[in-house]
Amino acid sequence: MRTIWLAADGSAVEIIDQTRLPHGFAIARLETLADAAHAIRAMLVRGAPLIGATAAWGLWLALCRDATDAALAQAHATLLATRPTAVNLRWALDRVRARVAPLPATERAAAARGLAIAMCDEDVALNRGIASAGLPLIRAIAARKRPDERVNILTHCNAGWLAAVDVGTATAPIYAAHDAGLAVHVWVDETRPRNQGASLTAWELLNHGVPHTVIADNAGGHLMQHGHVDLVIVGTDRTTATGDVANKIGTYLKALAAHDNGVPFYVAAPSPSIDWTLHDGRREIPIEERGAEELAQITGRLADGTVASVSVLPAGSAAANPAFDVTPARLVTGLITERGVCSATAEGLRTLFPGHASKP
Amino acid sequence: MRTIWLAADGSAVEIIDQTRLPHGFAIARLETLADAAHAIRAMLVRGAPLIGATAAWGLWLALCRDATDAALAQAHATLLATRPTAVNLRWALDRVRARVAPLPATERAAAARGLAIAMCDEDVALNRGIASAGLPLIRAIAARKRPDERVNILTHCNAGWLAAVDVGTATAPIYAAHDAGLAVHVWVDETRPRNQGASLTAWELLNHGVPHTVIADNAGGHLMQHGHVDLVIVGTDRTTATGDVANKIGTYLKALAAHDNGVPFYVAAPSPSIDWTLHDGRREIPIEERGAEELAQITGRLADGTVASVSVLPAGSAAANPAFDVTPARLVTGLITERGVCSATAEGLRTLFPGHASKP
Repeated sequence: MRTIWLAADGSAVEIIDQTRLPHGFAIARLETLADAAHAIRAMLVRGAPLIGATAAWGLWLALCRDATDAALAQAHATLLATRPTAVNLRWALDRVRARVAPLPATERAAAARGLAIAMCDEDVALNRGIASAGLPLIRAIAARKRPDERVNILTHCNAGWLAAVDVGTATAPIYAAHDAGLAVHVWVDETRPRNQGASLTAWELLNHGVPHTVIADNAGGHLMQHGHVDLVIVGTDRTTATGDVANKIGTYLKALAAHDNGVPFYVAAPSPSIDWTLHDGRREIPIEERGAEELAQITGRLADGTVASVSVLPAGSAAANPAFDVTPARLVTGLITERGVCSATAEGLRTLFPGHASKP
Repeated sequence: MRTIWLAADGSAVEIIDQTRLPHGFAIARLETLADAAHAIRAMLVRGAPLIGATAAWGLWLALCRDATDAALAQAHATLLATRPTAVNLRWALDRVRARVAPLPATERAAAARGLAIAMCDEDVALNRGIASAGLPLIRAIAARKRPDERVNILTHCNAGWLAAVDVGTATAPIYAAHDAGLAVHVWVDETRPRNQGASLTAWELLNHGVPHTVIADNAGGHLMQHGHVDLVIVGTDRTTATGDVANKIGTYLKALAAHDNGVPFYVAAPSPSIDWTLHDGRREIPIEERGAEELAQITGRLADGTVASVSVLPAGSAAANPAFDVTPARLVTGLITERGVCSATAEGLRTLFPGHASKP
């Protein structure tokens, strides 16, 4: 199963509605540009690669109704405005627009559909590349363990198959290691405020049979201080040409703790997440501020099994909700890309992607 | 209002049941040793100073029923076993035992009551000392601000008046600054898994009229990277003679971020929190592991106002819940004690407390 696909009737796109997990499983149907924009904005889909894929399909949905230049421009702008941090969004939109803009209006929808299908397949291939590139890192740690020991990997948020079209980024090497028979155990940061770790990563690992333990976001530093983490792997929503990484809020704190305790900290970075135009993540990457209600309201199962939301703040207390933070390249041990692992530096990235020379 | 007091009928102790905040306010009555032990273990009372005060009152409750040596020893052991990390617990129990043990059994209960009352008053006085010692730190930052700017202080968990008998430790200088007319604003870490920041610190600040914003525990590093935090003040459950600090899980991550961004990181450490026998916090301070249900279940208000708990993990996922971590002294800018501010070093502590020379 993938996270997004062309509906069987060929006239819409279907997705897993990720706001319902882990307490329910539902498919949502996207029929219009507005549906696609809503799905991204309200996080029915999330994760940088999947945001990009959904945006590509959203342009197709728009072009099915109106394939004029004006409609194309408006659809591009509407989708680009949904979320600011993941660069995959702009990358996917620009790529589809560049393909269809030169075509006559009558051919645009079909071309967009073909490209969206190709981009989804390509995302899966990129993630398989990340799995292959990251697996040796886990294998090397496993080789130093006693037979009864597991490789303990900490991850933050969800950069699993739910965050991509399939396979995932940060979890791709973990699944590959598990499938290869290596004994792995994953510390899953619950990832407040939206709990993507507890809701999505734990659900993925459970369904795949990978041993895991959910922890509060506060716990990772303590676990690292006591030798309980061998490796951290996280995803990225935007990587600068110099190796700075914007990822889910709190990633930076784990990178600091990993650095302080000599724990390798890797970022799974498929090339569409790299923004070759940026050189200082903290200054240049736009950080989304989301609504305070995401902090104030928590959804879960009541004792009778029904799903409900509870308010956890005192009535009258304000809340703030920055959704991402930037981990400076100096704290990143390496980037796991589809072309291999490189240092989180302009030189490292240039070696793997010589066509995209960073201009400092 | 204090957090603990002798009941009007003189035969029991009353406390604020802190498990009910912020959605309800209830007084609980402790009549027996078992009541006191339960109140500490189940966190009806929490916070290192208040745990100590409750333990002192718990010994009195035990001695009212049976003041023999055996009963005294058993009550001491029962209360000491409730929670492992806060050293105030042992400090309070040893102090009451040392006072009453030499007395005839008939005089022990009255002596314990007198000492418990005195220790509660003393806790308030210590915390007033911390307020006075910490206020100049905030005043100095305020003096560098423009008239329209506030001093932004981040705190983790609750080291407010609810964590002590009254006044609080980490929040004592904040209340003093607010009351002195300085413009302060507090970033309140929600402090998963038990949410003492969102439930208790926010409730305290709201009732006192101190501007504040609740944030996910993940957010503090990002705020510091962007200059939105002037100062961090946290409490401590146990401070070594060398200045290492055990405090609520996640404190260490904030200390790392403060250090990385040049933000002063202070720990409000009343002397009963100092364990003069320890010299390496990470190795020596016992860290409590609490139940996984604290992570899996979240309590709040449903839309109709009733209070309910929801499960947030997939059924089948394990969870781990270490309750404290240790912040090494190298990350602590200073300790705010009732005798003034000192460096988080054996030398700094010796200067303020020359009677307690640390033996390295």
